[in-house]
Amino acid sequence: MIKVAIIGGSGYTGLELLRLLATHKSVEVVSITSRTYKATLVDKVEPSLKGFYKGLHFSDPTDIDKADADIYFSCLPHGASMEMVSRLIKAGKVVIDLSADFRLKDLATYEKWYCAHKAKDLIDEAVYGLPELYRTDIKKAKLIANPGCYPTGATLATAPLLKGGLVGTDSIIIDSKSGTSGAGRTAAIETSFVEVAEGFKAYNVGIHRHTPEIEQTFGELSGLKDKGVKVTFTPHLLPVSRGILSTIYLQLNNKEQTTEELLSLYKDFYSSEPFVRVLDEGEFPNIKDVRGSNFCDIALRADGRGGVVVISAIDNLVKGASGQAIQNMNIIFGFEEDEGLTSPPIGV
Amino acid sequence: MIKVAIIGGSGYTGLELLRLLATHKSVEVVSITSRTYKATLVDKVEPSLKGFYKGLHFSDPTDIDKADADIYFSCLPHGASMEMVSRLIKAGKVVIDLSADFRLKDLATYEKWYCAHKAKDLIDEAVYGLPELYRTDIKKAKLIANPGCYPTGATLATAPLLKGGLVGTDSIIIDSKSGTSGAGRTAAIETSFVEVAEGFKAYNVGIHRHTPEIEQTFGELSGLKDKGVKVTFTPHLLPVSRGILSTIYLQLNNKEQTTEELLSLYKDFYSSEPFVRVLDEGEFPNIKDVRGSNFCDIALRADGRGGVVVISAIDNLVKGASGQAIQNMNIIFGFEEDEGLTSPPIGV
Amino acid sequence: MIKVAIIGGSGYTGLELLRLLATHKSVEVVSITSRTYKATLVDKVEPSLKGFYKGLHFSDPTDIDKADADIYFSCLPHGASMEMVSRLIKAGKVVIDLSADFRLKDLATYEKWYCAHKAKDLIDEAVYGLPELYRTDIKKAKLIANPGCYPTGATLATAPLLKGGLVGTDSIIIDSKSGTSGAGRTAAIETSFVEVAEGFKAYNVGIHRHTPEIEQTFGELSGLKDKGVKVTFTPHLLPVSRGILSTIYLQLNNKEQTTEELLSLYKDFYSSEPFVRVLDEGEFPNIKDVRGSNFCDIALRADGRGGVVVISAIDNLVKGASGQAIQNMNIIFGFEEDEGLTSPPIGV
Amino acid sequence: MIKVAIIGGSGYTGLELLRLLATHKSVEVVSITSRTYKATLVDKVEPSLKGFYKGLHFSDPTDIDKADADIYFSCLPHGASMEMVSRLIKAGKVVIDLSADFRLKDLATYEKWYCAHKAKDLIDEAVYGLPELYRTDIKKAKLIANPGCYPTGATLATAPLLKGGLVGTDSIIIDSKSGTSGAGRTAAIETSFVEVAEGFKAYNVGIHRHTPEIEQTFGELSGLKDKGVKVTFTPHLLPVSRGILSTIYLQLNNKEQTTEELLSLYKDFYSSEPFVRVLDEGEFPNIKDVRGSNFCDIALRADGRGGVVVISAIDNLVKGASGQAIQNMNIIFGFEEDEGLTSPPIGV
Repeated sequence: MIKVAIIGGSGYTGLELLRLLATHKSVEVVSITSRTYKATLVDKVEPSLKGFYKGLHFSDPTDIDKADADIYFSCLPHGASMEMVSRLIKAGKVVIDLSADFRLKDLATYEKWYCAHKAKDLIDEAVYGLPELYRTDIKKAKLIANPGCYPTGATLATAPLLKGGLVGTDSIIIDSKSGTSGAGRTAAIETSFVEVAEGFKAYNVGIHRHTPEIEQTFGELSGLKDKGVKVTFTPHLLPVSRGILSTIYLQLNNKEQTTEELLSLYKDFYSSEPFVRVLDEGEFPNIKDVRGSNFCDIALRADGRGGVVVISAIDNLVKGASGQAIQNMNIIFGFEEDEGLTSPPIGV
Repeated sequence: MIKVAIIGGSGYTGLELLRLLATHKSVEVVSITSRTYKATLVDKVEPSLKGFYKGLHFSDPTDIDKADADIYFSCLPHGASMEMVSRLIKAGKVVIDLSADFRLKDLATYEKWYCAHKAKDLIDEAVYGLPELYRTDIKKAKLIANPGCYPTGATLATAPLLKGGLVGTDSIIIDSKSGTSGAGRTAAIETSFVEVAEGFKAYNVGIHRHTPEIEQTFGELSGLKDKGVKVTFTPHLLPVSRGILSTIYLQLNNKEQTTEELLSLYKDFYSSEPFVRVLDEGEFPNIKDVRGSNFCDIALRADGRGGVVVISAIDNLVKGASGQAIQNMNIIFGFEEDEGLTSPPIGV
Repeated sequence: MIKVAIIGGSGYTGLELLRLLATHKSVEVVSITSRTYKATLVDKVEPSLKGFYKGLHFSDPTDIDKADADIYFSCLPHGASMEMVSRLIKAGKVVIDLSADFRLKDLATYEKWYCAHKAKDLIDEAVYGLPELYRTDIKKAKLIANPGCYPTGATLATAPLLKGGLVGTDSIIIDSKSGTSGAGRTAAIETSFVEVAEGFKAYNVGIHRHTPEIEQTFGELSGLKDKGVKVTFTPHLLPVSRGILSTIYLQLNNKEQTTEELLSLYKDFYSSEPFVRVLDEGEFPNIKDVRGSNFCDIALRADGRGGVVVISAIDNLVKGASGQAIQNMNIIFGFEEDEGLTSPPIGV
Repeated sequence: MIKVAIIGGSGYTGLELLRLLATHKSVEVVSITSRTYKATLVDKVEPSLKGFYKGLHFSDPTDIDKADADIYFSCLPHGASMEMVSRLIKAGKVVIDLSADFRLKDLATYEKWYCAHKAKDLIDEAVYGLPELYRTDIKKAKLIANPGCYPTGATLATAPLLKGGLVGTDSIIIDSKSGTSGAGRTAAIETSFVEVAEGFKAYNVGIHRHTPEIEQTFGELSGLKDKGVKVTFTPHLLPVSRGILSTIYLQLNNKEQTTEELLSLYKDFYSSEPFVRVLDEGEFPNIKDVRGSNFCDIALRADGRGGVVVISAIDNLVKGASGQAIQNMNIIFGFEEDEGLTSPPIGV
């Protein structure tokens, strides 16, 4: 039984950690911080949790040093997270950072897209927490940079093609659609029910911060670094709470390659992965079929003219954030990798 | 062609006035104020209006005196509205107040449920703007207290029974369900998409401010004033943008009365009303069938044991607010009563 | 490890059994039948289940005798269920019947509201499977009549008042709102997305089949049998997938009773129940806070004038059907009562 | 005042014609047919229409010859429509065909994607009813092939680029997302509320029938015919009732071209169009901002590396079907082109 602390826990990723960890056999949540809700019981903020975590209050972030936990999940926003993470790492703690602060290896890129970095010395040490690609490094890590939600779905969808060198990388198009919880638990007219329901739109067209993160990983996978990779990424806002579906357009180097061959390659690539489900030919994923779960469902179709469309679906709060963070924790501490993550999706 | 000014127009009722007045043949919107959005084009706040009201900006509320309009719609919140209304009435203007400030005739009741009143002298002068019941007074009015959304649906649903003295008034139960636009165009976690979607709850149980407004009108209709009327009113929040459905439970004085007889009574009562549709026996209203329109659909069923269930549906932004306000304006200025309100509901 | 068979399992209650049983430690699903989908893998019908129940196909209903299971869940519609149940009971099996066929103790009432009964001899033997009220009988039962979704929420909401003799029973009003999955997994224009989304309506006003079931239990609880109980029940269709919220209006015999006193009574009444959560004063339930879980959340408010409003929320597919069925199974077989039902609701 | 007949009018496009024509000053609907609902009042099928079209019944399709209308809208499915259209054209009538039967100019292409053609002689005569591009031909037409919903949004989004020869045509990617009404008014589990709500998926990936229609028009616009055009088209199903958003990826021949230059080109191109709204730089369309209206909102962004993303939004039932059909009728009969189509979108 290890002790868990959650920092900045009153947003959706923090509350989702609570939801998932409630059934984890080997952890105890000893502390959860929130500036806004300090001294409030967690189930007064998220009433669905009533009966779980009895007596657990949000505490002031400054109390974090008293937590003495074995692992800390930072759900702070980028910028704020790096300082807290730095303090914890220096105190010898294991940290999983759900913010973007340690995802980008190139400092200049980080500072261009985000802000000045205040813990540069830790950038190299951080391991990008996508278990399907970096499990060996994760096992030994002290600091996990938990991947962004869009990059998780996009990377799992394309890794077999990129690692195999099967596709061009100078014009990859990623058309992604995300549920509204991706915008965070904040009061804003744009994410109010009336503005989102019955609507659909693109946002941050051409300028979303997940673009360099995707290009970095695609570059690593293709062996080209990000020099040779050009990704056009368009996120859209879906009138649903959870889920990201990414429709990705690539060009095959070998135009003869068939859907069947590629699916066979994918099934091999992910054959021992507990959370990647490669669909059969003619099937395509639906975000509702992964809802609440840590699965990434993937399907594809080659058009016989050199084009291939790959589609992946994840729950942005689970595989795109808190579930993947727990998966990383499980790997680091040697628990069953799916511990706390075994419930089927709530498909209906 | 008359000149219209809208005060506090960047909320849903103000924007809905713009939507509806765009097709009104006899009005021109000359001014719309908003503290938050002053100097912003209206179609930058509500992009659906692009191409309408070209060049119309929100202006500072202090500019209202320059408007020189023939009629002013006040969409300010209660408390703020009374001062503006008072100024305009004193300047000899016609005002339709969409706030609660002049709805309650009893000062003490107003001040108990809302706040201190600063324009008490106007309370008697204000006419309650429910055309189906007070059309004669509306014609001559200078100041209209536009009814609340819940009271509109509840009153139209029960007026034939109350006026006819056909039901007991010591225990009337009104179970209402409203779309989220009723909460206004404000940034709040409780009305964010993620909190509202797939949810449903009661709120302000037993303490909603529309209760005294309903009891006042029911008292008038039944001839008992509100002394003899006890209403139990429970509002709920629906995961839809628009619409209020009220399910109302009453006791018939004559237990023998049949659904058929009562529907016949209702059809007579509303036979010349352009916006009340009494459904046939066995049919029940759906909020989507009045969406975007000024209709109030009503159905009922007597259970043969003395109980009668009456159900009404309105669009809270139209018949429950801006559409009714326009209907009142049409009556005052002698336009066709349905001018600007002739489009069918958007039932799909 | 016991063996489970599900009959008529391709509807929402059958698929929900699969979702919930996937994490149950002590059961194995050995058979699931479906006339429509026979020979189809379960995850081809419900893709969210991919990776669970590997190789499990729907089988023809006639194969049920080969199942040799320890317990049978019948998800057949009423009328069809009674024959299958009868056959299984005669073969000495334990059966949980999710249909209405064995819920009503009075044959004439059943036949009036449903159809001719073909297994009358079993009506007395069947135990009404609401554990909070009938746990002792359930332990010894061979045949469980699993309660209807609406009656479950309505009964749990009112049992402390009815058993305590605290309220009048001659005019109880139950205004219920249900998610669309309650209509079953069938192709129908009325339950299509376009017809349901952005809509809300009452249906089966005054004639819903759950009325006699509610009156029967209320009669038992109040000691009056159903003679002295008059329930007015109005179901409504919510544009959500899951959840029932019931708003119930009763008259207290002692008008002085306060919300505080009544909540205290409720908390005592349900103090050892794993699945009933009584909320604190001023809080009211939301269906999303029980979504996917077996909880029933209850709140109330006394108005000081003799009226009391009680509100309950359940997930119609879980506590209203399959979760309660599993809870009954757990009781009969001596498992932990919450086995398979321990995940928190998916509140977001 | 002209006389209108609607054939196969009980689906969403037929009902939408009724909704829109209710405010059209110069038409009278004299007949609407439906095999399923014959002899039923239209407002019993679509209750939102109560009070409009009083006494209008659906009639048997065989009665169409008695209609003696000036114009016929065929809302029949492809295959069935061609025969009816042929009969009417031969009788000298004006026909607007909302099916796909006369959209494809190449018979072989039609028969490959749809079915055998039974009115081949009319293919050449039919005019593709996209007014922004073919208004001159429409004016003189007797038979209009009303464009498909996806092709309408995709073509308006790209026409200025294609006609200007500004983009490559060998790899155009169209990622479209449609509301559920696009699937028609039919009973099917896949389009039921429970299956669609909270979900999102691609469908008919690489094989949607609108692909050849898009390629045909793109070929015409680019002067290459469809030989030189390769479109990858992926439709997705949105959990909303109405609306199509298409996100289109093209390669500019001149990589230097800026967003500003291109938007200026678009604004010129569509400067006298009543229903195309080109957004300002940095703005992107939302389907809710065109809901219920005949508008097509368009935005774009050039990425400075040769890529350009163009996004368009329409209401699939209006500009994507019935509204466009009315626009075509208005052109043919010399009415104001926006007659019946002047209401603002219902943006909330």
